[in-house]
Amino acid sequence: MATPPDHQPNELRLALDFGGTKLTAGVFSGDDRLAASRVVPAGSVATESFESLLAVADELLADRRPSLRSVGVSFGGPTDADRGVVRRSYHVPGWDDWPLAERLEAHFGVPVSVDNDANAGALGEWRFGGHERTRTLLYITVSTGVGGGWVIDGQPYSGRDGMAGEIGHCVVDPQGPPCVCGKRGCVEVLASGLSIARAAVRRLAEAGAPDGPLRRRMEELGGDLTGRDVAWSSDQGDPLAAEVLFGAARSLGLGIGTACGLMNPDLVVLGGGVTNAGTEWLETVRTAARESVLEDNRVDITTAALGDDAPLWGALALALARPAS
Amino acid sequence: MATPPDHQPNELRLALDFGGTKLTAGVFSGDDRLAASRVVPAGSVATESFESLLAVADELLADRRPSLRSVGVSFGGPTDADRGVVRRSYHVPGWDDWPLAERLEAHFGVPVSVDNDANAGALGEWRFGGHERTRTLLYITVSTGVGGGWVIDGQPYSGRDGMAGEIGHCVVDPQGPPCVCGKRGCVEVLASGLSIARAAVRRLAEAGAPDGPLRRRMEELGGDLTGRDVAWSSDQGDPLAAEVLFGAARSLGLGIGTACGLMNPDLVVLGGGVTNAGTEWLETVRTAARESVLEDNRVDITTAALGDDAPLWGALALALARPAS
Repeated sequence: MATPPDHQPNELRLALDFGGTKLTAGVFSGDDRLAASRVVPAGSVATESFESLLAVADELLADRRPSLRSVGVSFGGPTDADRGVVRRSYHVPGWDDWPLAERLEAHFGVPVSVDNDANAGALGEWRFGGHERTRTLLYITVSTGVGGGWVIDGQPYSGRDGMAGEIGHCVVDPQGPPCVCGKRGCVEVLASGLSIARAAVRRLAEAGAPDGPLRRRMEELGGDLTGRDVAWSSDQGDPLAAEVLFGAARSLGLGIGTACGLMNPDLVVLGGGVTNAGTEWLETVRTAARESVLEDNRVDITTAALGDDAPLWGALALALARPAS
Repeated sequence: MATPPDHQPNELRLALDFGGTKLTAGVFSGDDRLAASRVVPAGSVATESFESLLAVADELLADRRPSLRSVGVSFGGPTDADRGVVRRSYHVPGWDDWPLAERLEAHFGVPVSVDNDANAGALGEWRFGGHERTRTLLYITVSTGVGGGWVIDGQPYSGRDGMAGEIGHCVVDPQGPPCVCGKRGCVEVLASGLSIARAAVRRLAEAGAPDGPLRRRMEELGGDLTGRDVAWSSDQGDPLAAEVLFGAARSLGLGIGTACGLMNPDLVVLGGGVTNAGTEWLETVRTAARESVLEDNRVDITTAALGDDAPLWGALALALARPAS
């Protein structure tokens, strides 16, 4: 009797997710069975060089290596997916213009696909998050920064230069604060976790800023805050924290509204740590997005079914899309 | 000897373009040979009802009708392309929710495709404007209003509700003038021909507004102006006209930059009357668009190779995409 196609222990895929805070490696059998995984914090020995990355993968594969059929990589930075090259590496020094796919192919002897984490997250959510019927999906990761990726007709859509999905640098307030990109009032500088934290610290320093959970939290932390602290303080009833948090949500919603006006996607999926800020944050995003499109343009926004693992599952989807060697 | 496939006089296509100012009907043989055409001004008897439209088409086809294989329609208003229904008709009263494809199919007995003029223009430029190699093309019509349509992988991309490409209602200045859509500072209310004319009239009414070609033109016209008058006055060296015209170009460029940041298309094609405003207008659009995207995102903007005929050729492309009956 033939083995069913979704249960062939000899067909393994390696998925790698290089995030800002960690490297996650997973070995999968069949279409979606996790056989083994390892998580390594960014900045540790194992993420310092390409050789140490190979050591992590080799150790994880161990005697399963002969069954490896393909590798998929989600990289947290700009990539050239067509050529499998890392354009810029913010996590690991010396990886700019690094031919990651080629080097991994040379090491493992199987096909390798590389894409950035937003595109991989989009693909992961589309394929494994229950959204395979959506024709156009926009995935947005809202964490330290804001990135985005499209899946159109089941394929990652990256555009001419691999730059599509850059909703983080969509301007929603031309009079707003300056962004690292050189413009003002981009979604990222108004709505990311880092921007929420910075806005809260700035507002607390203003004359007449109220005392409350937010200020106490900042004092506990020696003058610093994270986006999570602002969300927590808002939950505790701090009005300044709420103002900052929901202002950020509104900016994100305006950016999403712009994207929906241009592309009218079936679904927008939000991933990244800021999506843990609660239902009122999400409702604020939704309301702002819906207010900014024309009447007949339906806008559906949901949070990532796979949470932080969306890019890893996207890396698996990239690996599965490659013909087994 | 077999007739070559691109030269079969018995395979005719009817293309119809319902614009704001005229109805154009063309009969084509082969893939791109215009056999006969007729242009009827909007508001004339022939555009007043569906029956009078049929009369125009029947007269044009005459004894060629047995060779008709399919019909394509570009409609200047919101359509449901999947169902071939006119959603809203601004030109002909009583056509809201009109099942145009179904009724034309019943009359002609051949397959009919209907899409809005921006999507049709996009398809026309892609297929007949020399851009068949571009994977993603954004076509923008800048005339009385501003509309847009995408072609992705050779197919019109309309989104979930047929609302994709609405760059006219992309906000570039949230503090800007109110738009018909209810928002402020949309591309349309800042960059369309009508908006250019209105801004010029408004600026001339301000205290201290200079005399010059623009004011003289307005006086000749009894207090009114068109976008074309503003472009002409700018060409004559009128500084106020230039300020209005290039401010409009800059707003359009910012909207294009937003679209390019989100989709990184291969090419942006500009059609519509305002594109006749000259090379400085076009260069201003290009500069603003390029300034508003990230460094690696290349932005190429050109004017429509087919000029005002892009939607008619798009209607032909829609007809050709339907299997011959």
